[in-house]
Amino acid sequence: MEKRAVVLYSGGLDSTTCLAMAKADGFAPYAMSFSYGQRHGFELEVAKANARPLGAVEHLVVDFDLRRMGGSALTDDISVPKEGVGSDIPVTYVPARNTIFLSFALGWAEVLGAFDIYIGVNSLDYSGYPDCRPEFVSAFEALANLATKSGVEGQGHFSIRTPLINMTKAEIIKAGVALGVDYSWTHSCYDPESDGTSCGRCDSCRLRLKGFAEAGLVDPLTYSGR
Amino acid sequence: MEKRAVVLYSGGLDSTTCLAMAKADGFAPYAMSFSYGQRHGFELEVAKANARPLGAVEHLVVDFDLRRMGGSALTDDISVPKEGVGSDIPVTYVPARNTIFLSFALGWAEVLGAFDIYIGVNSLDYSGYPDCRPEFVSAFEALANLATKSGVEGQGHFSIRTPLINMTKAEIIKAGVALGVDYSWTHSCYDPESDGTSCGRCDSCRLRLKGFAEAGLVDPLTYSGR
Repeated sequence: MEKRAVVLYSGGLDSTTCLAMAKADGFAPYAMSFSYGQRHGFELEVAKANARPLGAVEHLVVDFDLRRMGGSALTDDISVPKEGVGSDIPVTYVPARNTIFLSFALGWAEVLGAFDIYIGVNSLDYSGYPDCRPEFVSAFEALANLATKSGVEGQGHFSIRTPLINMTKAEIIKAGVALGVDYSWTHSCYDPESDGTSCGRCDSCRLRLKGFAEAGLVDPLTYSGR
Repeated sequence: MEKRAVVLYSGGLDSTTCLAMAKADGFAPYAMSFSYGQRHGFELEVAKANARPLGAVEHLVVDFDLRRMGGSALTDDISVPKEGVGSDIPVTYVPARNTIFLSFALGWAEVLGAFDIYIGVNSLDYSGYPDCRPEFVSAFEALANLATKSGVEGQGHFSIRTPLINMTKAEIIKAGVALGVDYSWTHSCYDPESDGTSCGRCDSCRLRLKGFAEAGLVDPLTYSGR
C-alpha cells in the first residue's frame, strides 16, 4: 500500500505547493481543510473544488467556530490591514491556529495509519506568526510522538514535514511550477471581492505578488487593487 | 483583576474536581467543553447545566465532529467494553483528543489573557490513554510557549496544570469533597441509559465506583447495572 500523508490544505499558494510536494515525495495525500469562522469562505470553496483534482485521495473539512473565542482580524470584525507588512505580530494572527490544525491532522493521521503531516509554514515570508517557526514545528513533532497510541507503541515516528519553511515565496512558486502546479487554482487574499477577486493590497496578496515578481513569473490571478 | 484560568470541563468527576481546585487556587475559572460527536450527549448536558452554578465565569462549548475521522468507540459504532479495565490502550481511545482539547484551550487562554490551563488527566487510573501522561503534558506546555504571541513575547508563561495527575480516584474524590464538590452534579458513564442513568459496568463507571469504595464514601449516583 502506498504510504499515506495528511496535508494541511487551505486552497492557498503554499499549501497547494505542499500537496504537490507530498505527491512528488511518493505519498498518497489526504487533504485536510478547516472551516473555522473565516470572514470569507472563498478560500475554502477553492479548496473544496480543487483538492481531488489536485490529487488528494480524500478531502476532509473540519468545521468549528473560532469566532466565539474572538481575538483576530480573520474571524472578528477588525479591519484587515492594507498598509504593508510590518515587523510585529499582526492583528491577523489567530490564537493557536496552527496548533489546532496540526492537532486535528494528528488525529486523522492516526486513524489513517499515516505518520507524515505536511504543513506549508514558512519562516521567511511568515508574516510574524509564532506558530510558523521551526521551533514550534519541532515542539509539535515531539508532542505528536507522545500524544498518540501509534507513536507511543512505536508503530512509526510522526514527522511534521515543512518543505517550504526555509524557502522564499519566489522559491516556493518556482518549485511549484517545476512540479506542474497551476497557481490559477489557488487563492491567497485575506479580503477578496464578493466574486473572489483578490484585493492585491492585504499582507497575503503583497507577499504573493512580490514572490511572483522575484521569481520572474506572472501571477495568473487578477487583482482589484482596491 | 482576578487571574483567569481556562479549565477543561466535561461534566465528569475529574474535571469538576479540577474546576473546584482552580477556584481554590484563586483563579477566575473559564470552563471549556467540547461537543465532538460523542455517542451520547448526556455528559455535555450535565456540563452545560452545571458550569456556571459551579463557579465558572463563562462556559464555552466548542463544537466539531470527530466522527468523520473515525477511530474510536466513543464516537463510532463499536461496542463500549464492559468486561473490566485491561492493560492495553482501550478501543475507547480517541486519536489526539487531549491534544485537540488543549489546543483550543490555549487559543481561548490567549484571547482571555490567561496563562493557566487546568486539565483533569490522571496517570494512575488513566485507562491507558497516552495523552494523559506527564510527559505528554510537559510536551504540550513547551509547545504552548512557542505557539503563541503572548508566550513568545514573554507576557507570561503558560502552565498546563494537572492537579489530579498523581492522585488515585479515591484521593481525587476525597479532595473534591473537602472542597465542597457535590458529586451528584457529575457524570462519568460512557454508555448511559436514555434517562442518563449510569451503567455501572463500563471502564469509567468501574473506576469511579472503585474510587468511592476506596475513599470509604458512597457515590450519590444511581446505577442500572446493565
